[in-house]
Amino acid sequence: MGEFPLIARVVARSGTASLADVGPGDDAAVLRTPDGRVVACTDVLVEGRHFRRDWSSAEDVGHKAAAANLADVAAMGAVPTALLVGLACPADTSAAWLEGVAVGMAAECAPFGAAVVGGDTSASAPDSSAVVLSVTALGDLGGRAPVLRSGARAGDVVAVAGRLGWSACGLAVLRRGFSAPAAAVGAHRRPLPPYAAGPAAADAGATAMCDTSDGLLADAGHLAADSGVVLDLDRAVLRETYVVGPLPQVAAALGGDPLGWVLTGGEDHALVATFPPHVALPEGWTRIGVVHEPTEDGPGVRVDGVPAAQVAAELGEETGHVHFG
Amino acid sequence: MGEFPLIARVVARSGTASLADVGPGDDAAVLRTPDGRVVACTDVLVEGRHFRRDWSSAEDVGHKAAAANLADVAAMGAVPTALLVGLACPADTSAAWLEGVAVGMAAECAPFGAAVVGGDTSASAPDSSAVVLSVTALGDLGGRAPVLRSGARAGDVVAVAGRLGWSACGLAVLRRGFSAPAAAVGAHRRPLPPYAAGPAAADAGATAMCDTSDGLLADAGHLAADSGVVLDLDRAVLRETYVVGPLPQVAAALGGDPLGWVLTGGEDHALVATFPPHVALPEGWTRIGVVHEPTEDGPGVRVDGVPAAQVAAELGEETGHVHFG
Repeated sequence: MGEFPLIARVVARSGTASLADVGPGDDAAVLRTPDGRVVACTDVLVEGRHFRRDWSSAEDVGHKAAAANLADVAAMGAVPTALLVGLACPADTSAAWLEGVAVGMAAECAPFGAAVVGGDTSASAPDSSAVVLSVTALGDLGGRAPVLRSGARAGDVVAVAGRLGWSACGLAVLRRGFSAPAAAVGAHRRPLPPYAAGPAAADAGATAMCDTSDGLLADAGHLAADSGVVLDLDRAVLRETYVVGPLPQVAAALGGDPLGWVLTGGEDHALVATFPPHVALPEGWTRIGVVHEPTEDGPGVRVDGVPAAQVAAELGEETGHVHFG
Repeated sequence: MGEFPLIARVVARSGTASLADVGPGDDAAVLRTPDGRVVACTDVLVEGRHFRRDWSSAEDVGHKAAAANLADVAAMGAVPTALLVGLACPADTSAAWLEGVAVGMAAECAPFGAAVVGGDTSASAPDSSAVVLSVTALGDLGGRAPVLRSGARAGDVVAVAGRLGWSACGLAVLRRGFSAPAAAVGAHRRPLPPYAAGPAAADAGATAMCDTSDGLLADAGHLAADSGVVLDLDRAVLRETYVVGPLPQVAAALGGDPLGWVLTGGEDHALVATFPPHVALPEGWTRIGVVHEPTEDGPGVRVDGVPAAQVAAELGEETGHVHFG
């Protein structure tokens, strides 16, 4: 199938962006930007590193690729408006598989009135039979100030919205050759970022925010470094609040402490943010720690006062999400 | 080198976008959109299909990847404001090569006050040692109506801005193992799209416009199809105006009619547009034909009345740019 009929079939599955004046099919899309600013980010997903076609359906891949980007938009305090998709895939990739990806992306975008408004396709590199997806998300701040990683101040509280460790738990299950429990495997295939919590945090006065695509300790570390502070997290609260759902059962079956997944597992796209001390946290947010001035060791993340790297090592994990490829 | 220090080094080479409130380094960039709309497009470049590292320097690749996208922005009648870059590359890709790509992109963007404002990197697929670049460009219409592919009307004139066939001529040179003439090879490595001609055409009342990334006949064909018209091009004008620079000399040396490159060569990113019959064409635009009502064969492109596919076949070319991979 040639490029143009294929694109037409995929576009037909992509839905319509409510803010698009010009959608797919021209040299570029034109999108209204009510705020007067546009939020924009890009995330790359590589087959064999971020997904496997035997572990995830085409629709799963579409959901996951969209979610990774839409969560970044939410982490600025914005609402997604559109996606653009760069795709390199083997020449023999079936139209059905590509349509599945489009359907997954469209479903992930639809609640916001967002949709794929443009993109480009190419054959994979001559040496490769892998799919590479590069997705760009655009968003609108609706008058909010963007919430950066650099605004956390000593005395702030640290809070999280969304699930932690579920995707890593699901990946552990798949790696052992199992496909249940469905809650864990499903979380790996289709993360459920807490999109609404991003703008809600901005409205509530969050001082800093980012998404946890690389895992809580790693991404909180970026926030700590950019803000020049220490985030001290409460291990008991983390265990009580986040070692839930399939995590205890799977950890018991496979061995190991499920707190490792909570602290270092990536791709759930939870949001971590800091708020001034007396702010009432918005719905969906849980207080997990406090912000301190940096110690003589500099900024960073601690858990009950213990440096993040040491905590992760004791749990047999590395900080910083390592993909499976 | 880990991902974060590498990104920092590349970002340091990327320049600053004049409209960026938030640049690289957070979950997303935030860019002002003075027009109240944003133009957005994505183009994928795959090593071994769109470039070869032995034929193009890192800076060449950066220029080319940026130009392919910036030309699409211009083809809407807009001015580029920012790029986002999704990159999959082998883990052993040198920082110097990636910095070179960043330098090339920055140089191509700088005249507009645009720059790379965000992106993401990943290791290539496990089976591949190729670089895949997916670049998204954003642009601002400055109050202009976007010029679509669908607005050409019978009686309009067809015009082109920019060079045609130079990149294909350069590729023919490289394929034979030569590296001169420099004008041809340089045009393949770093196209020179006529960026300013896009907004100028919009201001002058262009009825339809697109860029010629796939070659004149192919892209004029998209315009004809979307507008439901016939574009009839003037062979004598095309030969006289565009068989220039290195084309006659290289064609004489390699054999073949250089008009083939002019009509079917891609990646020069010239602009093709239609204008109402009595409009004075803006600077840089050359009249190459006229628009007719569709014949019984439907919409399409003709050269002196002969269908495009027949003309291309007689010249030994295919319509529709075929990459070299």
